[in-house]
Amino acid sequence: MRFLIIGGSDAGISAALRAQEIDPNAKIDVLLEDNFPNYSICGLPFYLSGETPDWHSLAHRTEFAGISIRRSHRATRIDGNSRTVEVQVEGSGHSSLPYDKLLIATGASPVIPHIEGWQLPGVFLLHTMNDSFAVHEYLDRVKPQRAVIVGAGYIGLEMADALTHRGIEVMVASRTKAVLATVDSEFGEAVGQELEHHGVGVATSVEARRIIKVGDHLHVSGNEGFEQDCELVLIAVGVKPNATLGIEAGLQTGEKGALLTNRKMESGVPDVYVAGDCAETWHRLLERHTYLPLGTTAHKQGRTAGENATGGRREFGGSLGTQIVKIFDRVIGRTGLRQDEAEREGFHPFTVESTVNDHKAYYPGATPLRARITGDLSTGRLLGAQLIGAWGAEVSKRIDVLATALFHEMTVDQISDLDLSYTPPLSSPWDPVQMTSQAWSLQSKSQQPKESSCTR
Amino acid sequence: MRFLIIGGSDAGISAALRAQEIDPNAKIDVLLEDNFPNYSICGLPFYLSGETPDWHSLAHRTEFAGISIRRSHRATRIDGNSRTVEVQVEGSGHSSLPYDKLLIATGASPVIPHIEGWQLPGVFLLHTMNDSFAVHEYLDRVKPQRAVIVGAGYIGLEMADALTHRGIEVMVASRTKAVLATVDSEFGEAVGQELEHHGVGVATSVEARRIIKVGDHLHVSGNEGFEQDCELVLIAVGVKPNATLGIEAGLQTGEKGALLTNRKMESGVPDVYVAGDCAETWHRLLERHTYLPLGTTAHKQGRTAGENATGGRREFGGSLGTQIVKIFDRVIGRTGLRQDEAEREGFHPFTVESTVNDHKAYYPGATPLRARITGDLSTGRLLGAQLIGAWGAEVSKRIDVLATALFHEMTVDQISDLDLSYTPPLSSPWDPVQMTSQAWSLQSKSQQPKESSCTR
Repeated sequence: MRFLIIGGSDAGISAALRAQEIDPNAKIDVLLEDNFPNYSICGLPFYLSGETPDWHSLAHRTEFAGISIRRSHRATRIDGNSRTVEVQVEGSGHSSLPYDKLLIATGASPVIPHIEGWQLPGVFLLHTMNDSFAVHEYLDRVKPQRAVIVGAGYIGLEMADALTHRGIEVMVASRTKAVLATVDSEFGEAVGQELEHHGVGVATSVEARRIIKVGDHLHVSGNEGFEQDCELVLIAVGVKPNATLGIEAGLQTGEKGALLTNRKMESGVPDVYVAGDCAETWHRLLERHTYLPLGTTAHKQGRTAGENATGGRREFGGSLGTQIVKIFDRVIGRTGLRQDEAEREGFHPFTVESTVNDHKAYYPGATPLRARITGDLSTGRLLGAQLIGAWGAEVSKRIDVLATALFHEMTVDQISDLDLSYTPPLSSPWDPVQMTSQAWSLQSKSQQPKESSCTR
Repeated sequence: MRFLIIGGSDAGISAALRAQEIDPNAKIDVLLEDNFPNYSICGLPFYLSGETPDWHSLAHRTEFAGISIRRSHRATRIDGNSRTVEVQVEGSGHSSLPYDKLLIATGASPVIPHIEGWQLPGVFLLHTMNDSFAVHEYLDRVKPQRAVIVGAGYIGLEMADALTHRGIEVMVASRTKAVLATVDSEFGEAVGQELEHHGVGVATSVEARRIIKVGDHLHVSGNEGFEQDCELVLIAVGVKPNATLGIEAGLQTGEKGALLTNRKMESGVPDVYVAGDCAETWHRLLERHTYLPLGTTAHKQGRTAGENATGGRREFGGSLGTQIVKIFDRVIGRTGLRQDEAEREGFHPFTVESTVNDHKAYYPGATPLRARITGDLSTGRLLGAQLIGAWGAEVSKRIDVLATALFHEMTVDQISDLDLSYTPPLSSPWDPVQMTSQAWSLQSKSQQPKESSCTR
């Protein structure tokens, strides 16, 4: 069985590894446009901060025994009839590779916003290893003193942390009224304060519109009177799926132009699977496809595709949009839906926030943990949760407890039934997530569903 | 409605608080033998170590608005016919209190092993605030240089840490071949090494049999040639339920002499509930009652009893035996069943251990996490998990993710479907618990259930 995989990042390599586990005789080829199979793209900010001095260590793995990794191989065309993929090999022309099963795992590309001057030297996108080499080289050569980061999502804020770590003065331009729009603005504001506490400038409700070169530096301007001089601009405003190759092979697209798939990661075209950032994402709670490109999801979708390409019948368990980020000394996480998202989806959400110590206050080092729990007033069901707390306060695995609860469609009230661990240095007899659930249960009693009929 | 509660520790106070939430008009009385309502007994080691200088801060709460806390009130007899409880009030004789609903939450007492000389001055049990005051006074006055701790369970080991923190030379005498018998001996041995690394002597397979006074110190001897001089002996070999009051009132006993209950925490005697360390514990996985006295369980059982005493119909969700302990710089947790426990219960368990970094190695500070996952070969079901890792490596909430998975009867394989959070400073795209699950799935393929028929 010839299993051909286009793309050698998280989804592609996960598929290859799983296929090999299941069918050690399968002939597995992974086509890689660049030279960096299975590198941890999420690690780029730490390479650029200097915390990860050697970029080689960003590789999730370097051994691919039995899997053929073809570097600098760009797939240019898929022929579903002859079951072949045309490949452009850097430095040596075209070739054609046959397949029995094919996985398209072509990933995503950075969105380029409408900013005049974005192609100037000193302005960077950050998505690939080569992008980060370019930034790294620029940092070493030009030694910028000031940077503007356009975009206040995960990568933008991690880069604000990273460049500050290097001693660069950073200004973040956030289009939204608070940074980190994936969490409620109450938490976004807390993250903004954390940034400012570490000397990062935060400009909110700002759209950067123009970058010009002025003497030896760059000048960024935008609405709301935003004007900033700097030597480095990073643009990180999201990604879009690399779907062209799939579309040209006859695949359909769905949410946000991502390649359509079912939960088996089948594309609809016979023997062609899709996975990772180029593909749609089944949302477990919404019970429909969305576009939520994340490394964790890419790994799971790839693994699912690899299992099914070798005869399995596994279904992707679905995403809950679980995400976590560390910004300086704070960790911010979310899973499921926010209040506003849940409202748009026709739920009757109600959100409660509480602040509880991460562990018993009498044991040294307790820090306040802010938790927001969103539940449905009609059904009592947990819909989502957000947490912000100190690095070291087990924020991320607390979000995971709630993600596991969401996975099983628990009610908010049932969270108190979970037998969670307790010792004074690490928690309380009721874990903070349970205390917040109990606060939700009490406060929701005085709330009425906003509409008399349940639309879900 | 008069709700009378015998016992003012975790179960009793939780019941009172929940009853008050549900029925603000209920007349709630809590009878307390001592003077310390709702103190965190789990915090005693930290008071004695000096990390929690003021014992007052051990109180889970000090405000009980609307709940009558009757200190120094010892219940001596329950009369189910007249629905009254006879009470001995310290310094002021007897009285009788009526009830409509009664909760027996009398807790547990330390087991006293067969050790000659256990009543000598300088030998202590540790279970109540008064116990800890006695130890504290002794530490201040006698300033012991050397201590022997008999018992290597949670409290014994926390006290080894605590007394070392005070500069005392500690020897732990463990009856089992490795300390911390609640986890597999592989992990117990790692905990033993952690103790020794911090200067604690560890004697295993030792039963202390005799304590004598020799000059100004104590001498402890046991089997296996165990001989140790010291100025302080702590005995911590477990607890037994305080069931007498309940038994005399006609309640039945079950597992290990604990008061029988159903999942509503009803005792079988009309309008009498039981909760906490005096009561049996419904085990969610075994689907039968056990005796597993833990603070978390006491809180949940108390809350359940309080809800039902005020008209609710809640069932205790059950224990999974989830436990966590911090010993010096290590955190050790478990949930569910160990291999040997699962075998005894008629499962077909198989256990896999893996060692994985708590987060991506390229981000500074990664530490190895050892995980053991036990699953059932016949059904694939997760049966239990154990983790040991560095303090700060989110061991406890990782155990909780697995406890939540166990709560929902997940298979080991399904754990890979969970949408857990990832950022390089805090985890990997597959969390260590998922990597270990995947190792279990692979390795279990080559295993056969030990018996051809499934007894469960």
